[in-house]
Amino acid sequence: MHVTILGGGGFLGRKLAARLAAEGAIGGRALAGLTLFDLAEPPPLAAPFPVTRLAGDVADAAQLAQAIPAGTGVVFHLAAVVSAAAEADFDLGMRVNLQGTLAVIEACRALPTPPRLVFTSSVASFGGGQGAVLADDARQLPANSYGAQKAAAELILQDASRKGFLDAVSIRLPTVIVRPGRPNKAASSFVSAILREPLLGLDTPLPVEEGFAVWVCSPRRAVEWFLHAAAMDTAPLGLDRGINPPGLSVRVGEMLAALTPSERAHVKPAPDPAVQAIVGGWPAAFTAARARALGFSPQEGVAEILAAFREDDLAATRAERGL
Amino acid sequence: MHVTILGGGGFLGRKLAARLAAEGAIGGRALAGLTLFDLAEPPPLAAPFPVTRLAGDVADAAQLAQAIPAGTGVVFHLAAVVSAAAEADFDLGMRVNLQGTLAVIEACRALPTPPRLVFTSSVASFGGGQGAVLADDARQLPANSYGAQKAAAELILQDASRKGFLDAVSIRLPTVIVRPGRPNKAASSFVSAILREPLLGLDTPLPVEEGFAVWVCSPRRAVEWFLHAAAMDTAPLGLDRGINPPGLSVRVGEMLAALTPSERAHVKPAPDPAVQAIVGGWPAAFTAARARALGFSPQEGVAEILAAFREDDLAATRAERGL
Repeated sequence: MHVTILGGGGFLGRKLAARLAAEGAIGGRALAGLTLFDLAEPPPLAAPFPVTRLAGDVADAAQLAQAIPAGTGVVFHLAAVVSAAAEADFDLGMRVNLQGTLAVIEACRALPTPPRLVFTSSVASFGGGQGAVLADDARQLPANSYGAQKAAAELILQDASRKGFLDAVSIRLPTVIVRPGRPNKAASSFVSAILREPLLGLDTPLPVEEGFAVWVCSPRRAVEWFLHAAAMDTAPLGLDRGINPPGLSVRVGEMLAALTPSERAHVKPAPDPAVQAIVGGWPAAFTAARARALGFSPQEGVAEILAAFREDDLAATRAERGL
Repeated sequence: MHVTILGGGGFLGRKLAARLAAEGAIGGRALAGLTLFDLAEPPPLAAPFPVTRLAGDVADAAQLAQAIPAGTGVVFHLAAVVSAAAEADFDLGMRVNLQGTLAVIEACRALPTPPRLVFTSSVASFGGGQGAVLADDARQLPANSYGAQKAAAELILQDASRKGFLDAVSIRLPTVIVRPGRPNKAASSFVSAILREPLLGLDTPLPVEEGFAVWVCSPRRAVEWFLHAAAMDTAPLGLDRGINPPGLSVRVGEMLAALTPSERAHVKPAPDPAVQAIVGGWPAAFTAARARALGFSPQEGVAEILAAFREDDLAATRAERGL
């Protein structure tokens, strides 16, 4: 079976690729090849199967056809324009997040056998805000362009699954922490920064209050969910291809409590209404009962998340940033 | 103020245009001109303001720019590929129902002042089926391509409203009865046919059981809702631009009871699994509390619907079909 990761050069794409290289299989099906596709050519990957690395545009039909060849059994579609960037540039967000996903559907539909499509949707596709604990049948009423584009793409993926063009599972990812590297344009960037930057000995602004709650997951857990979504029996999903995975609802203050006092001193209160306006609309908790019943594993606590970051990413982040 | 009706040559578009010609204003704002746009050039309309009739493709940016000139205050976007047609031809439905609506957003965004956009979404954008009584916050989990495309378009219209590109109100229309003319490709075509055809003295198949419930409205009521949506204050809507209007939940047997025995004899049971599969997934009732509170008037009963059809459309339908 061939596997493709769209957005294979990104933070989660690289972690997923490394995991596939280590395991050599998904759900007992051996990988015969892996294609990593991103705007810039993804970095090399040592693997027990051939790895093709392609630079391209996810909204370009011809480039996608190259990235998703005949024999592709699973496509991980992680390519996206993140929340603050999609908010700042509506056209770019529409082109990548919505039209890009429609192009992925067409590429999958052109295959002789409909592939499994694991799509990363987002908590940002919901409204509700701080007080919410969303049930599995909560509707998506996004308060930002990124979330609207993801929710619209989910609807068409759901219909394309019903039509048999592909077999989609859409994972509405919580805010993923701790992201390695640098702060980025996601409105939720601060949720990682307030843990990562202090560990690097750097000051970082806190745009919200300490009582602010966030629905989070770790990169390790996200990759587990992707692999489960790639291998699971989708028959029990029926029409509903959207999964609210069992993340962790945590307050900023609880996250800061996992730091040492000297680390914590690097976090400087700096209220930011623009960030609050976006992230404040996202729900802070989900019941996630359906996902648990479907075998998606629950997120562990903040201490484990921080330990995983130290183990997996701290050294590389230090090196990358010349610290 | 200029007004445009996309789908202005269709059944509801023509009725809406006639109503605008009769009133000359929307919510106290006088019409300076009306553009009727459809695949085929809409029929002439006598009106106290200039009427422009255009043939074109709703997914074509240049043609839309002509149809939505500077000075447009209200756009009624009724252009659509109906349910069974969108189910039979996925690409056509996507092009018109989703990409066409995205093109309408771009045309509105190009105007100096954001216009009101009244969009016809559909009961088909919901799942739930016969047993359902949907609350206003019910999510859209469509079981057909038409509904998926409408729901996805609603999400982007909602976001475009938040961004200030336009000011959208999406009306999830019930099944509209009694449609004049001939049976069409809508899966719900039978709901009109079982009243219209007997009045014309013609036999017609009944693809469902008499206990089957449908969420309906009359053409007169739909036009009332369009005009209310065009003139209403949208501030109370907030982010949520979708309206479940107060239609009527009625069983097929109740509709048939409004016919005389000799008329009713023209309705011939002929179960059709394909029609049942589409229409059977649509919810048969909504609470519609929010729409009532927002001033959308409730649908009257079957007897009034039938009387309106006799008054408004029976003679023209007879003539059109050479009966």
